[in-house]
Amino acid sequence: AVIIILNATPPPDPPAWRYECQQNRCVKMELNQSNIDTAISLPVCRLFCGENVPVWPKPTETIRLDPSTVRIKKSGINFRRPSTRSVDSLWSAIENRFTNQIEAKVAHTTGLKDEGKNLIIKFSVNESSNYNLESYTDERYKLSLSQTSNEAIAEIKAETIYGARHGLETLSQLIVYDDIRRELQVVAEGEISDSPVYKHRGLLLDTSRNYFSVESLKRLIDAMAIVKLNVFHWHITDSHSFPLVLKSHPDLTKYGAYTPKKVYTPESIRDLVQYARVRGVRVLPEFDAPAHVGEGWQKKDMTACFNKQPWQDYCVEPPCGQLDPTVDGLYDVLEDIYREMYDYFDSPDIFHMGGDEVSTGCWNSSERIQKWMLAKGWKLEEKDFIELWGYFQDNALERFDKVAGRKLPIIMWTSHLTEKPFVDKYLDKSRYIIQIWTTGADPKVQDLLELGYKLIVSNYDALYLDCGFGGWVNDGNNWCSPFIGWQKVYDNRPDKIAGQYPSQILGSEAALWAEQVDEYTLDSRFWPRASALAERLWSNPDTTWREAESRMLMHRERLVENGIGAEALQPEWCLQNENDCPIIKSGA
Amino acid sequence: AVIIILNATPPPDPPAWRYECQQNRCVKMELNQSNIDTAISLPVCRLFCGENVPVWPKPTETIRLDPSTVRIKKSGINFRRPSTRSVDSLWSAIENRFTNQIEAKVAHTTGLKDEGKNLIIKFSVNESSNYNLESYTDERYKLSLSQTSNEAIAEIKAETIYGARHGLETLSQLIVYDDIRRELQVVAEGEISDSPVYKHRGLLLDTSRNYFSVESLKRLIDAMAIVKLNVFHWHITDSHSFPLVLKSHPDLTKYGAYTPKKVYTPESIRDLVQYARVRGVRVLPEFDAPAHVGEGWQKKDMTACFNKQPWQDYCVEPPCGQLDPTVDGLYDVLEDIYREMYDYFDSPDIFHMGGDEVSTGCWNSSERIQKWMLAKGWKLEEKDFIELWGYFQDNALERFDKVAGRKLPIIMWTSHLTEKPFVDKYLDKSRYIIQIWTTGADPKVQDLLELGYKLIVSNYDALYLDCGFGGWVNDGNNWCSPFIGWQKVYDNRPDKIAGQYPSQILGSEAALWAEQVDEYTLDSRFWPRASALAERLWSNPDTTWREAESRMLMHRERLVENGIGAEALQPEWCLQNENDCPIIKSGA
Repeated sequence: AVIIILNATPPPDPPAWRYECQQNRCVKMELNQSNIDTAISLPVCRLFCGENVPVWPKPTETIRLDPSTVRIKKSGINFRRPSTRSVDSLWSAIENRFTNQIEAKVAHTTGLKDEGKNLIIKFSVNESSNYNLESYTDERYKLSLSQTSNEAIAEIKAETIYGARHGLETLSQLIVYDDIRRELQVVAEGEISDSPVYKHRGLLLDTSRNYFSVESLKRLIDAMAIVKLNVFHWHITDSHSFPLVLKSHPDLTKYGAYTPKKVYTPESIRDLVQYARVRGVRVLPEFDAPAHVGEGWQKKDMTACFNKQPWQDYCVEPPCGQLDPTVDGLYDVLEDIYREMYDYFDSPDIFHMGGDEVSTGCWNSSERIQKWMLAKGWKLEEKDFIELWGYFQDNALERFDKVAGRKLPIIMWTSHLTEKPFVDKYLDKSRYIIQIWTTGADPKVQDLLELGYKLIVSNYDALYLDCGFGGWVNDGNNWCSPFIGWQKVYDNRPDKIAGQYPSQILGSEAALWAEQVDEYTLDSRFWPRASALAERLWSNPDTTWREAESRMLMHRERLVENGIGAEALQPEWCLQNENDCPIIKSGA
Repeated sequence: AVIIILNATPPPDPPAWRYECQQNRCVKMELNQSNIDTAISLPVCRLFCGENVPVWPKPTETIRLDPSTVRIKKSGINFRRPSTRSVDSLWSAIENRFTNQIEAKVAHTTGLKDEGKNLIIKFSVNESSNYNLESYTDERYKLSLSQTSNEAIAEIKAETIYGARHGLETLSQLIVYDDIRRELQVVAEGEISDSPVYKHRGLLLDTSRNYFSVESLKRLIDAMAIVKLNVFHWHITDSHSFPLVLKSHPDLTKYGAYTPKKVYTPESIRDLVQYARVRGVRVLPEFDAPAHVGEGWQKKDMTACFNKQPWQDYCVEPPCGQLDPTVDGLYDVLEDIYREMYDYFDSPDIFHMGGDEVSTGCWNSSERIQKWMLAKGWKLEEKDFIELWGYFQDNALERFDKVAGRKLPIIMWTSHLTEKPFVDKYLDKSRYIIQIWTTGADPKVQDLLELGYKLIVSNYDALYLDCGFGGWVNDGNNWCSPFIGWQKVYDNRPDKIAGQYPSQILGSEAALWAEQVDEYTLDSRFWPRASALAERLWSNPDTTWREAESRMLMHRERLVENGIGAEALQPEWCLQNENDCPIIKSGA
């Protein structure tokens, strides 16, 4: 392709290299005085060379970009937003984010020539659309690029403000810094129409095993916004710590938080939910029960087997702990917890009740529970403990419904309860969505699909990003080793896992369980691997990671540019020498 | 043990927990009004409870700490240093580092009560000692703690300023923040005598595959200083990039650096060497040749097989490239490189010439090399290429010796050249130290020991910290997978690898090859795992990682406190509940 740069002469002291598009790849060539006027920088070359635009995730409908750029001045960015006053602050926050992203492109450069056309960004959305961000929010957008003699114009049309936000994200990826001319350039003419394949595109973070500052969570949401992920699934409590501050039960946090500062206050949660909304990300709260409960509950006498040893007999990792379903007062406490969560998380239209890894051994170690069950005429066998679990779940759901005032969809993890023959006895498929964390090939997944359940896919063999590090409750490496490379994440296809029932898959989440992660490695564990998930879910390409690799290397740099401490995947040499690091295919 | 806190009443609003030392572990107990006056915080409890002081690495000689602390005020820290004026700035820098470390202990606290005794730190060193930091610098120190009615006194005696620096590092680990009383406390009475088992305790970083800012390298050296590692082995160039700025050959950097900013200038190197010296760390420069050369040399016509494809035929990863030993002018260039490096690295008393992974296929692909060899009457067989390599090494060494003006020890990697029958033909054991990177059990290690070579141990199966991530030149995970947990690093014993020849082991290095790492994951790849190496080399305990685990969890927090983004190893719960996360022993 011939790429046309509509610009002035480059400044002195340019870099050593320019790029030429040859056979669909950008080839590094020497830059010198004789070729500098028409020389093309790497990011400009990558905009047009080859089949794939560098936008991540790849747009799914129309992509037409004419191979020419125009220089713009960052001080000349203007927004024309719809006149719905009630959401002015939401628009402002979205626009500010965009401006900051453009600033980040030149933050570490010297001698920026901030000259060129103004960039006019015109939004139009359906004014009657819902300004809340919900499970079924329309995320489509259409981005059109054109220019006049003194303006570059980007028109973004969408049904909702959230679709428009996605369009802005795409636009920011079509603006590049040209290190030869030291100026910002935008694609001059083109059009992209885009919409996601899956509605539910999420990341799970566990903030109980280790604590993460609110600042670090915001960084996570920043990165999610870049790749159009839309669900932050917050596994906020577990048996290890209870960082959630509740006015109704301050003892849960007092005894449950690691320190008085390692907490999430109502204000910080509300702030985060709003921060996420500006970035098109819903915060999905999980209150995991009846297992995965422990610290914080010390004063309540409502748990069984807390920190009981040897832990192997009562849970999957220390400290053990489960709620005792037989304590009447428990459900009042749960109602209080649900009420405050429902409030701080801004009336979410979906809620996660956890429900994984309940241990019969734990409940069976409690004399109080045994007595209660026997008094009911039950036995102390597996199916009786399942009955007890069902009893807990019914009561908990009733309290949640009371709080929400409507019957919301409830997500639960795969567990013994979600297996045949229990699942449809205890979990109504019109109410419950099942999040699978078993392997993608596990026949239990097919069982659930056949029974008609809707699923969210988090198969641990491809989507548990904490795998592969040193063991901490066992010798050697941790339980789900080895480390999962971005390639495996990319090639993990929910539609293939669904077999004959693809329409029952709502989407997918990658999970970061935090036993061996805290805010210091948060960025590098998720990124850039979570970007591979993002493209799989937004675009669901028929191609594999091999076709995405060259774009992924560019994309990783984009994450870094935006302040995300994403892991390096390859030597920078491979980024600068496209396709010169060919992979040895194994077993081919 | 009964621990005595010589302090005033705690302030209101204390944390929820205190600790009691029971059966050699610190047990979490509720803190309340009835026990607050004598309550003990976790870091204070850990100073005395059980057999091991929390100092990392563990001191090797006398350790006597009386179980009492005294509160000190950070504004009352005073140093009494020897009066050698010529090194006043070195002393100042060392003292400032200590003061900053103490500040870091309380940086994120609120309501610090900066009251208590002054802390007087008295240094004495052998005034006739060498103030340069060298391979054989004496690192011993003795730290004595005592008190008067208004002073806490720490006396540090050492042969050299570098030993004294180590003593100060130990002292800083005996000062803790008590979150119950909100004050700094120091061990009131005690004595530690300490010296390292191995002289060479290093970390290798490759700054060619990816670039690391000088700021990030300083952070690495900060962390090394905390654990008394003393060698930063800087693999500064490779075939991927040439970030080293040389006045004699600016083209090497112009064409070899990833960008004009991703370079190490003479000033930045000198600055880093001085920064390291203040921290007791020598910078060991490596100029790897004749293989691992490529980018930067484009204008010189002195290389073979640069970026030749398919790369598998000419090197171990792209881009390939080796120096062409037959080009006469090459040795003048090498002399220039050595001269500038020797200068910027402050006349090091040891130098690394690389020498790994030379490919016969690469040299044999050059017609010029073939002609030269045939003209000498050689053949083109394996042994002839070894002869060529020997020729290169002799010429390169001659130039290095000319630059240094003395015959310094030279380190080289294990390679085909270091195998029988070549090694003692080409590499004089009185000049060359061999750094092994093969597995610890490889019989070639024994061969070298039998021949009398001195070794530095970097066996990749325990000390290559880049292992275990996604593949980049192959499917699946990278070549030396799986990830190496800190436990394996800790239990890797150079003395066991040495068999009958332990005295020939100078020490060991952990390596971070940077294909998949850059400054954003630098901290978490090295830390806390490199601390396990540090204790193995300083203390060489007869115990295993199991006995060190509880101290390691405390130590990891110390790294974070000092601004190092070290990886979390376990839930914080396991730190707060000592020994309640027992490991399932496999195969036991």
